[in-house]
Amino acid sequence: MATPENLSFILQGVHKVTFEDRPIPELKEPHDVLINVKYTGICGSDVHYWEEGSIGPFVVTDPMVLGHESAGVITQVGSAVQSLKVGDRVAMEPGIPCRRCEPCKAGKYNLCEHMRFAATPPYDGTLAKYYVLPEDFCYKLPERISLQEGALMEPLSVAVHIVRQARVSPGQSVVVFGAGPVGLLCCAVATAFGASKVIVVDIQQKRLDFAKDYATTATFMPKNVPATENAERLRQENGLGLGADVAIDASGAEPSVHTGIHVLRNGGTYVQGGMGRSEIIFPIMAACSKELTIKGSFRYGSGDYKLAVGLVASGSVDVKKLITDTVKFEDAEKAFVEVKAGKGIKTLIAGIDV
Amino acid sequence: MATPENLSFILQGVHKVTFEDRPIPELKEPHDVLINVKYTGICGSDVHYWEEGSIGPFVVTDPMVLGHESAGVITQVGSAVQSLKVGDRVAMEPGIPCRRCEPCKAGKYNLCEHMRFAATPPYDGTLAKYYVLPEDFCYKLPERISLQEGALMEPLSVAVHIVRQARVSPGQSVVVFGAGPVGLLCCAVATAFGASKVIVVDIQQKRLDFAKDYATTATFMPKNVPATENAERLRQENGLGLGADVAIDASGAEPSVHTGIHVLRNGGTYVQGGMGRSEIIFPIMAACSKELTIKGSFRYGSGDYKLAVGLVASGSVDVKKLITDTVKFEDAEKAFVEVKAGKGIKTLIAGIDV
Amino acid sequence: MATPENLSFILQGVHKVTFEDRPIPELKEPHDVLINVKYTGICGSDVHYWEEGSIGPFVVTDPMVLGHESAGVITQVGSAVQSLKVGDRVAMEPGIPCRRCEPCKAGKYNLCEHMRFAATPPYDGTLAKYYVLPEDFCYKLPERISLQEGALMEPLSVAVHIVRQARVSPGQSVVVFGAGPVGLLCCAVATAFGASKVIVVDIQQKRLDFAKDYATTATFMPKNVPATENAERLRQENGLGLGADVAIDASGAEPSVHTGIHVLRNGGTYVQGGMGRSEIIFPIMAACSKELTIKGSFRYGSGDYKLAVGLVASGSVDVKKLITDTVKFEDAEKAFVEVKAGKGIKTLIAGIDV
Amino acid sequence: MATPENLSFILQGVHKVTFEDRPIPELKEPHDVLINVKYTGICGSDVHYWEEGSIGPFVVTDPMVLGHESAGVITQVGSAVQSLKVGDRVAMEPGIPCRRCEPCKAGKYNLCEHMRFAATPPYDGTLAKYYVLPEDFCYKLPERISLQEGALMEPLSVAVHIVRQARVSPGQSVVVFGAGPVGLLCCAVATAFGASKVIVVDIQQKRLDFAKDYATTATFMPKNVPATENAERLRQENGLGLGADVAIDASGAEPSVHTGIHVLRNGGTYVQGGMGRSEIIFPIMAACSKELTIKGSFRYGSGDYKLAVGLVASGSVDVKKLITDTVKFEDAEKAFVEVKAGKGIKTLIAGIDV
Repeated sequence: MATPENLSFILQGVHKVTFEDRPIPELKEPHDVLINVKYTGICGSDVHYWEEGSIGPFVVTDPMVLGHESAGVITQVGSAVQSLKVGDRVAMEPGIPCRRCEPCKAGKYNLCEHMRFAATPPYDGTLAKYYVLPEDFCYKLPERISLQEGALMEPLSVAVHIVRQARVSPGQSVVVFGAGPVGLLCCAVATAFGASKVIVVDIQQKRLDFAKDYATTATFMPKNVPATENAERLRQENGLGLGADVAIDASGAEPSVHTGIHVLRNGGTYVQGGMGRSEIIFPIMAACSKELTIKGSFRYGSGDYKLAVGLVASGSVDVKKLITDTVKFEDAEKAFVEVKAGKGIKTLIAGIDV
Repeated sequence: MATPENLSFILQGVHKVTFEDRPIPELKEPHDVLINVKYTGICGSDVHYWEEGSIGPFVVTDPMVLGHESAGVITQVGSAVQSLKVGDRVAMEPGIPCRRCEPCKAGKYNLCEHMRFAATPPYDGTLAKYYVLPEDFCYKLPERISLQEGALMEPLSVAVHIVRQARVSPGQSVVVFGAGPVGLLCCAVATAFGASKVIVVDIQQKRLDFAKDYATTATFMPKNVPATENAERLRQENGLGLGADVAIDASGAEPSVHTGIHVLRNGGTYVQGGMGRSEIIFPIMAACSKELTIKGSFRYGSGDYKLAVGLVASGSVDVKKLITDTVKFEDAEKAFVEVKAGKGIKTLIAGIDV
Repeated sequence: MATPENLSFILQGVHKVTFEDRPIPELKEPHDVLINVKYTGICGSDVHYWEEGSIGPFVVTDPMVLGHESAGVITQVGSAVQSLKVGDRVAMEPGIPCRRCEPCKAGKYNLCEHMRFAATPPYDGTLAKYYVLPEDFCYKLPERISLQEGALMEPLSVAVHIVRQARVSPGQSVVVFGAGPVGLLCCAVATAFGASKVIVVDIQQKRLDFAKDYATTATFMPKNVPATENAERLRQENGLGLGADVAIDASGAEPSVHTGIHVLRNGGTYVQGGMGRSEIIFPIMAACSKELTIKGSFRYGSGDYKLAVGLVASGSVDVKKLITDTVKFEDAEKAFVEVKAGKGIKTLIAGIDV
Repeated sequence: MATPENLSFILQGVHKVTFEDRPIPELKEPHDVLINVKYTGICGSDVHYWEEGSIGPFVVTDPMVLGHESAGVITQVGSAVQSLKVGDRVAMEPGIPCRRCEPCKAGKYNLCEHMRFAATPPYDGTLAKYYVLPEDFCYKLPERISLQEGALMEPLSVAVHIVRQARVSPGQSVVVFGAGPVGLLCCAVATAFGASKVIVVDIQQKRLDFAKDYATTATFMPKNVPATENAERLRQENGLGLGADVAIDASGAEPSVHTGIHVLRNGGTYVQGGMGRSEIIFPIMAACSKELTIKGSFRYGSGDYKLAVGLVASGSVDVKKLITDTVKFEDAEKAFVEVKAGKGIKTLIAGIDV
């Protein structure tokens, strides 16, 4: 049997995955580049597709390559490419907007209705030997950032976008709900943005134990009491006075949302970074009478990837600590099992070298 | 019996009001002025105190003068007052912040924790012959604004604050839920801010009939269907394309909140202007994945009263149309009955002349 | 001799223009459309190229088609075009950015370093029978806007961008220096944005006479005195109290800049809309100690053309009044002579019908 | 002769200073506190009064106590004071706004026209044994901040305000002109705000030598060439690509202003932090065509002192390194001589213990 040209890891249906050799993708635009994918991280949404075959309105109907947290090496460049050359190591931003609609031209391309996003039906993902991107969605990695770390630029960009949505500024107090990869990275980014207090909340002690040594000033285990009581204890234990400046939810859990709203000071900012159920009970009167600003955060946009790379390059954010395992490409499904089991923080799947 | 010096309309308990003669209040600070109150409007929160004796955490335990939507005439000025003189007609901003705390010095005095607000326990309101305010919370009425209109500067300032929270800008589409006084005034202010489409939503046809001729480009009667369906019909009937730019809830009703969230475009802004229940079911995934900005709006603050007066002075906003009845001071309770019964739009209580 | 296919009006050198038949341009991208240009306005920068052969760093070295203020009718659409069809009447935004660089993706495409702008060397302009644009840079004109008015969308977009840079908001006072087309349109847009005082300053009485009836609340003729004195008189005559909120310079004249800085209140905003000399004397201490915000404004960007069309469609801005003459295509040079002579406000050149 | 009660250092006229015993000031408001001043720094504006008797419009006509960069210990508190007690060590914010005007209520109290600022005629400064302030203008020093460092909170607040005006955000490149105390502190604050490149420019090598080890990523000595050339070299030597994100002038020198404007990228931000001559030549076309945002920065306002204390408390900013000498109160004039001579970075004058 011939050596596969572009081995790909494909979701066929719920809990059914296969490896398949596909043609090497072609460059379609003069600004496109071909990338040999080297490392890909797995996150909750990947697992969700694997487990359910859908996320909200996005339903996998045809076989789809999984994966969207990747870094790789350039193997071919289009005729107009000037910023990259063969051999460059890059972090790969996996969603390409239309560049023509109002949100795109207004600097909000993450809100583009025509977005083609890796591993979001019907678009194939990055768990293949090769992937094509326009050059401006590839971010050259400086020497001090490894390709493994490069794969973490994706969740770090999610965190950068969340913290920017929250407009965290120096001296502020920030409470982050959820000590998974995105929550931890939100803590790290908030610290890099100058937050003077970064408190992480989780209901698993082992996650708090990890978080204690990672870009936080305090950890908090909520009790099984009303959210107002947890909020009050958060304020008192952390000297938050009339309340925190910013609350970020990276858990998607209803009690976190409530505690987040109640822990804020008048005029504070709340950002919903994680998604759980489509509807929840919400303390709207507190949000209104405290005149909070509440924002969603969706993926990442203008400048987020660039800043993510910069924060790691300068040593402001450490992503290496979060990589707890790397599996071979042929063991890709194992990564899904590990993430589902909550084993470790971030599992990577190695790519197939050229 | 002697002529009363400072007859006041006092809430003694639930549904129990009295008239009582109280001493004329004294000027305490050199910047204070004494005002002979001429007209006072009644709003939902006044009625709520009258009916329930409390609003959320604010409980009336001692007898309290009601009223906070007032205009009057200056009868005495403190030693340092320069901007006003006896005889000046003024709109009265009824909440005095501490001027010293962080929100006060950061330009957010409506969020002051030490606010002394008229007719919010334990502070007496303006339904008396006289009331004292610092000069900078009195807004001189230009000739073309009557004292009756002056009393409307309070709900108009509420609307100004809401529309400013929403950052309504020229060319935007705005959907307002609730065609009561505040909702209607939000429509008028959004129009004055250059909104190109202002659609008001209400479940009472008579309110929509009034709204049709008042600062709106369309009205909408929701059906008893899921909020997503009402939102879809709102979009289609009004050519909103991918969704409205801004949704304002001045109703406090859960279905309005849902329709408001669903009618917005990606990146749109939602402002909660009215308060109903303290907790509701909320479509958080839609808010998050559309990356909405959701804000509370609480009373009014820096520059709101000044702009309210300016909008009426320039003819941009008409408040006269909203005044549907004026009762004598001795019939004050009748105003509460009318507002409770939903009779008319805005009922005023005349003051007691000097 | 055959009928010309694509007659074009070409600058060959200083004061040397020719008519030349050029091939009809081809659609290069699936989103491109071909437009039969119907009307083109002439502005100061067109005249500057005609007179000097250059503007600052932009030097005309090869023959170049002039014109960039145009409206026309769609005659052909590319394979991917969905928003337009043959026969649609459109305003033409004449600068196409790269869509890939940081400013483009950050919502500031007017700052794109790779901009291809009509009639800016080496790019040909719109004074031809045909012109090609991507569909998203064409703005369909509603019925109530004529094609002549459509040509005015370009200078109106310049004014929209300036007024947005100034963040003019309802109730503000705005002083505009220069009562030429852009200055007048800034007055109109500031009024549409809710400015309560719009004062225009010019040294030509006939321009002030026109401006008096066009979207201003006052006019001002400066005297030959220090700028601080003109500023003081501006404040006093117009009841500006401690100073104006916003000053806009659409004149490029040094005395205007000085008066603009001095007329502002502490914390006010100044926008430089017109360009004259590359360096001038500047009152930097006043700018600093009043903590002004000073901004340049360059062309137009995200949402400006759309809002321009909306403001005319809603009747908020009248551009028809500014059109003082329309010349035939074969008399194009006459338009340059008229503009140079300061004759009228805006001269249009008719296009060549299909 | 009796022990002096409140020895004060007084400017009588140009280069004429005296020591005089004045009555201990009394608390006038219930929120006032009395402070025993412990350390006071001297800056350029103090020296300017000493040398010229005036700064711009501010002319010393009557004898005036000098000094405004101070820290001290509370010795008496007014009846309403709750946040402080006798013995507390505090940084002293030396300008008290009226709290009533529009800028004060809009969160811009540094722009208050009724500001009473220490050592700005006619208000006495802090170079006395005692000084009175409202409690909310005193910032309690945490244990790890000494009283000497406390005196540096004033210039650090100037720098915080400048960097906030510039909206420096993580990953940005910042060029600071002038390596005096304020320029150096701007570098430190920009670093704390996450700037990835902080380049300081000065014409004195010894200042650059100091700056090299203090919160900068590079230093730059301009040559005697056109500003555009210095700007070009700055860009190339520091990998600034199309230009710096932010330029801050803390020098007041015309060549710095020009280089600052020219070194910026399109859409960049320039802040004028230092003041030299009242008018200078200014490259306005570059500012306009690059669509720069140019801001003045005047003293400090809402939240600046609090953040200054926080940045030092957290170790983000080191002010200790800048203190190069401390002289006794009776040698106060020596500090002026040293500052005038450019000796060291920051000279403090010790206060008189109780």
